[in-house]
Amino acid sequence: MSAVDRSAGPPLHVQVAAELRDEIRDHRLPPGSALASEAALQARFGVARSVVRQALATLVAEGLVERGRGRGSVVAPAREHHRLVQRASGLFQQMAAEGLTVTTEVLELVEEDLPAEARWLGGSRALRLERLRRVGGRPLARIRTWLPLPRCAGVTAEELTDASLHDLLARRLGARATGGRRQVRAVAADAELAAELATAPGAPLLLLEGQTVDQHGRPLEVFATWHRAEEMAFDVEVVEQPAAPDERAPAPAGAPEHGATARPASLAEAAEQARRLAEVLADLAGAGDS
Amino acid sequence: MSAVDRSAGPPLHVQVAAELRDEIRDHRLPPGSALASEAALQARFGVARSVVRQALATLVAEGLVERGRGRGSVVAPAREHHRLVQRASGLFQQMAAEGLTVTTEVLELVEEDLPAEARWLGGSRALRLERLRRVGGRPLARIRTWLPLPRCAGVTAEELTDASLHDLLARRLGARATGGRRQVRAVAADAELAAELATAPGAPLLLLEGQTVDQHGRPLEVFATWHRAEEMAFDVEVVEQPAAPDERAPAPAGAPEHGATARPASLAEAAEQARRLAEVLADLAGAGDS
Repeated sequence: MSAVDRSAGPPLHVQVAAELRDEIRDHRLPPGSALASEAALQARFGVARSVVRQALATLVAEGLVERGRGRGSVVAPAREHHRLVQRASGLFQQMAAEGLTVTTEVLELVEEDLPAEARWLGGSRALRLERLRRVGGRPLARIRTWLPLPRCAGVTAEELTDASLHDLLARRLGARATGGRRQVRAVAADAELAAELATAPGAPLLLLEGQTVDQHGRPLEVFATWHRAEEMAFDVEVVEQPAAPDERAPAPAGAPEHGATARPASLAEAAEQARRLAEVLADLAGAGDS
Repeated sequence: MSAVDRSAGPPLHVQVAAELRDEIRDHRLPPGSALASEAALQARFGVARSVVRQALATLVAEGLVERGRGRGSVVAPAREHHRLVQRASGLFQQMAAEGLTVTTEVLELVEEDLPAEARWLGGSRALRLERLRRVGGRPLARIRTWLPLPRCAGVTAEELTDASLHDLLARRLGARATGGRRQVRAVAADAELAAELATAPGAPLLLLEGQTVDQHGRPLEVFATWHRAEEMAFDVEVVEQPAAPDERAPAPAGAPEHGATARPASLAEAAEQARRLAEVLADLAGAGDS
């Protein structure tokens, strides 16, 4: 399966590096995981130790692999942005909250007949907004947005340059993006998207499509955002399903890794934790009021 | 940008079809959207009408495009599976609930020292489970799962064949998958994943990684699932963010649809809620001991 091709093609160390790079990129070798030993890689690829060493040196130089302290080589931590797709807030707001420099270029802003893919907005006309978002100067996301008319009439490209669409809609219309649905897909870049996002045609892109409603449940936007896949991960928190009546957990489940409080080993311990929390909160409430 | 190459390469109609196919696949031309008219495509690609017609006929034969009723051609609806990634329930359960025939092949089930990428499970040993899931006979997902030991000791490949892991853990351990975190990425298939999923090396895959806890908040699994991207979309419902202090809605924000407790409007109210929770937990702890 993973033997190298001795008869033709690039040098052996290049082939070995390419195969390991592919496995790192698709997370078969996830960040932090240990690479097989040099001896094991030698056996797997059927090559000399020097070939393995040269391949590993390439991956280290690329920043994909780090030399472990006496424990062999490990896959380097991912350098990527995270986006919490369960939130209605946009990429601009989430990146800005992380202190990243986000720029937004408006490529096009035109009024059009409502197309089939934006029919959910209602009405017969819409604004189509085409934007390119860069983080630290690098293209990260290509955004197509449909906005309802006449509600959003008068929005200008100038206002949207290096700005958050959601902030603008809040200021102009008092409309807050609060709910909606999202769909996530992996797609291969076509020639035009590849050029805009400075990646290769066929490269994987992470596509987020969605419909957003405001605080009154009114359609606010339909959008599609293509992200450079190597620099973007979406985070999702699991929302507990209603338990069957006989399975209801007495203690709060959820995500213990976030909690400031150690997971209680018993109900009695949970009760004690809640009692202490009540005390702290009562203290804080007293301090705040005084 | 999208002119065809007359000097070399495949016939013009093949080039035109390839370009439109790429745009359909990456949703620049989403399902249901209208293709440009034959005249517009003729102008865009600088080719004869007959070339455009032949390209469209190819896409119709592939099922990607449908002849509209007097309205030109439209992109066909997507034939793909949907997965609600906010739920802890697995692919098997969600597909089975849709009435789809899901088969599961166990490729490997071994006990190992806990690797770095599964350290979240705790302990020093774990079961590594490698599976391939097919829907309607076609490979859809390649799943790698780490299960905690000794808790999951004794799980067998036979029990897991054509079965749901979560159902099995519920039956054997009384552990219900209720919470956790998920990360979604788009990656390019390496040679081995491409072979297993019957796709081409470099093809985009939709990768879902996660950590799942049971109803008591205990780590239940760490997993990575690579899905054939063309047949899978993840759905996410937007959960309303807590409002800023000056925007507080009178109704509970946060996750009102799940919470048994209304969002406190002040620290004093939060303290009171925690005090009542402590009482309930103490009661339950007493009941449990009796």
